[in-house]
Amino acid sequence: MKMLSLQGMFKPRSVMVVGISNKPENLGYTVLLSLREFGFPGKVYLVNPRLTEILGLKVHNSLEEIPETVDLAVICTSAEKVPSILQKIVDERKARWVVVYAAGFGELRTEEGLTLEEEIRRIIYGSEVHVVGPNCIGVYSFPGKINTLTGARDTYKLISELSGEGNVGFISQSGWFTIQFMSACVLRGVYLNKAVSTGNETDLTTTDFMECFAEDPEIRVISSYLEGVKDGRKFIETLKKTTLKKPVIIWKVGKTNVGKEAVKSHTGSLAGSAEIYDAVFRQFGVVSAEGNEDLIDYTVTFATCKSFLGKGRVGIVSGPGGFAVATAEACEKFGLKVPKLSSQTVEKLRKVLPKFAGGLLNPVDLTMRVGMEPELYRNALEVVAEDENVDLLIVVGNPPIYQTIKDLVKNLEKPVFAVLGYFKDFFEETKKLVKIGVPTYPSPEKAVKSIKALLNYQTYLEKKNVGSGAWI
Amino acid sequence: MKMLSLQGMFKPRSVMVVGISNKPENLGYTVLLSLREFGFPGKVYLVNPRLTEILGLKVHNSLEEIPETVDLAVICTSAEKVPSILQKIVDERKARWVVVYAAGFGELRTEEGLTLEEEIRRIIYGSEVHVVGPNCIGVYSFPGKINTLTGARDTYKLISELSGEGNVGFISQSGWFTIQFMSACVLRGVYLNKAVSTGNETDLTTTDFMECFAEDPEIRVISSYLEGVKDGRKFIETLKKTTLKKPVIIWKVGKTNVGKEAVKSHTGSLAGSAEIYDAVFRQFGVVSAEGNEDLIDYTVTFATCKSFLGKGRVGIVSGPGGFAVATAEACEKFGLKVPKLSSQTVEKLRKVLPKFAGGLLNPVDLTMRVGMEPELYRNALEVVAEDENVDLLIVVGNPPIYQTIKDLVKNLEKPVFAVLGYFKDFFEETKKLVKIGVPTYPSPEKAVKSIKALLNYQTYLEKKNVGSGAWI
Repeated sequence: MKMLSLQGMFKPRSVMVVGISNKPENLGYTVLLSLREFGFPGKVYLVNPRLTEILGLKVHNSLEEIPETVDLAVICTSAEKVPSILQKIVDERKARWVVVYAAGFGELRTEEGLTLEEEIRRIIYGSEVHVVGPNCIGVYSFPGKINTLTGARDTYKLISELSGEGNVGFISQSGWFTIQFMSACVLRGVYLNKAVSTGNETDLTTTDFMECFAEDPEIRVISSYLEGVKDGRKFIETLKKTTLKKPVIIWKVGKTNVGKEAVKSHTGSLAGSAEIYDAVFRQFGVVSAEGNEDLIDYTVTFATCKSFLGKGRVGIVSGPGGFAVATAEACEKFGLKVPKLSSQTVEKLRKVLPKFAGGLLNPVDLTMRVGMEPELYRNALEVVAEDENVDLLIVVGNPPIYQTIKDLVKNLEKPVFAVLGYFKDFFEETKKLVKIGVPTYPSPEKAVKSIKALLNYQTYLEKKNVGSGAWI
Repeated sequence: MKMLSLQGMFKPRSVMVVGISNKPENLGYTVLLSLREFGFPGKVYLVNPRLTEILGLKVHNSLEEIPETVDLAVICTSAEKVPSILQKIVDERKARWVVVYAAGFGELRTEEGLTLEEEIRRIIYGSEVHVVGPNCIGVYSFPGKINTLTGARDTYKLISELSGEGNVGFISQSGWFTIQFMSACVLRGVYLNKAVSTGNETDLTTTDFMECFAEDPEIRVISSYLEGVKDGRKFIETLKKTTLKKPVIIWKVGKTNVGKEAVKSHTGSLAGSAEIYDAVFRQFGVVSAEGNEDLIDYTVTFATCKSFLGKGRVGIVSGPGGFAVATAEACEKFGLKVPKLSSQTVEKLRKVLPKFAGGLLNPVDLTMRVGMEPELYRNALEVVAEDENVDLLIVVGNPPIYQTIKDLVKNLEKPVFAVLGYFKDFFEETKKLVKIGVPTYPSPEKAVKSIKALLNYQTYLEKKNVGSGAWI
């Protein structure tokens, strides 16, 4: 029940901003700017007891004046004022979903903070009002044109830049990290469809949003920054069902002692035992990220690649010899096979490559000559893709590779991944490649580790007799 | 003896380009453009039997016409022509150092290739002529204003962009990777002082250049991409001496079976056993990089940080809570202590921080408020730096952090490292921070892993009774 309505929260028809002022640094003011910048098409209500107009919009002096039950209320006051506002919203049915920005609750571990958080819980108990937060920055939805992620000054502008049609749903217990992750993905050519910063999860939890995103046809990949769960059993049940439908990539922090302590003062979550999380993630096919880099790389990979990896046997086609070696080596390290190419393949390669190309083995080394003859990439990829020992291709090259392979890639049945190195135009090139379905990485080890994670997930689906078909 | 002269190779007084034509795609032509672009101040000789002038410079029709022994000759012909040219150079003493670009030698593992490489060896045996390569792109030296790294079309322009005053010496058995590494470092604010692509190492080896860089006062950090060594004993002896003077960061590839095979067809090197390399690296304090990312991160760290890390106890000051947690966790994972702050420190922090700042523990969580009040960073850093339990600081923040901390950092005695996340302006901000001695990273795990590597190296120096003083 919660689930269905949660989807409404990401496409609200009306939004109410409580605690807005007309000062540029006011949080509510930036939320309003954000809604405008993002082109939110619904009704916007503003509440402030002492103002009549902000940016040409009427201001209501009390909650009572709001003429309807709005879909989403955003409370921008300090922590102490939250309970009384929330009580009014509940009593008079003024909103369905409420985002509470303020910090200063349970995460402080002071009596005052814990009491305030308990009050939120008490006020909404049994009502139809649900709360995101507190200590969070709320929701983002590209299709719903709604964005409350304006915690930091000028973030609303940034988010507009970071918006685009995407297929990733992101759930984060860190507010800042929500924006950071969005930014990191966009740099790599991948966009978020929806995102939520859940903060202290006094009411709505990561699990609730996972359940919601599991059913959301606009979301293909769920990624999450997780400090801890309060609803352990439900979390596991939800994971179990969700991973059969779409990949769930989780960066779980708070596994070490120091990490657990840090989690407590950040969101007040129970970080839990590393062993339990690891076991659950393994058992239920969760794609476990070991850090920020993994979370980004895996998300890029899962959001972009839409093919079966079969047995995951890799054909490597490379101009740069050093990265060819490193890619082959990373494959062995992370457990991917780099098979010998068939004699027919070698025969065909001989015809299209310069005679000093190394060995015609796998990796296929095109040598520095590709700097002069970039079409060697196309020729070699086409030949290697036909080899029955190869399930997927990794192409290693300089940024201008997109021009050379774009038409080829559209017609290849086997997936192609690209490793480009850190050239200045890496980010521009990667965006173009990702757009044509080629996940792209700066370093060999990042590519290979990600491909292995994708293969593991596809293998999990197969073992569960779901088949990758359910997802791909 | 070789060593002393090698330094001359990086500051040649004269350069000769053999096999130059006036076609834009000609390798020798791009070498000439590169020398001009880079402002090489010495004498340049061009050799082509059928031309009289290229870009306004006189062309000699034969080697015999060259009136002196040039410091550096660059042979830009195909493999077959190399032996006869080299023979003339040796017989008539026309050059001291020779770069041979061409591939098509031992790395092919064909009879023809192996024979050609053997010829090079035979021709220079006992002479005073030494060869870099073949199958390489030669040398780069910022102070010497010499750059032959023009293997790919238009690379000479790229290198000009990538040049700046730096303190890193780079030795690479991969040509493309030489440019890639340079580019990666520059994106992160670090510049190479000298670089060499050593290719098949028929004559001059990684070891020779390590010996040279060990003595070079302009080089503070030696980094290397290594496929294998042919002079095992000498390599180990050189490592042993060099690491007592300055850090040697090595990314060794070819440790796995697939990797070894790939190495053979790339440079024909003997990749050797993983166990032996690991043991040698550990014993002699080599900073071992596990991949491209490590090599870059470690190089940035060692080239930038110029302080003792003491016992490596970390104080974390953070606005973003999620990255604060992740940084603390990474510290525990990689074996760095995150101590409790003294009661005096906590007392002082109370005065400068908003009351909702989490716990005043370590990490010090400044909350999203720093978006509004960036000076909180400065205040908190200053206080935490005074804590006697803290040896170094990690500051976690948004890119605009440079403006806030620049003056503070100059006066702090303890080193500061920064974690910024992948925002669009990450690379711009990192350059500014690195310039003031703050190594900067996009992700917590990258920062912490690098700090640990630096601490390990400093501990190695202490164990050897050299003291970090020898290097810092």
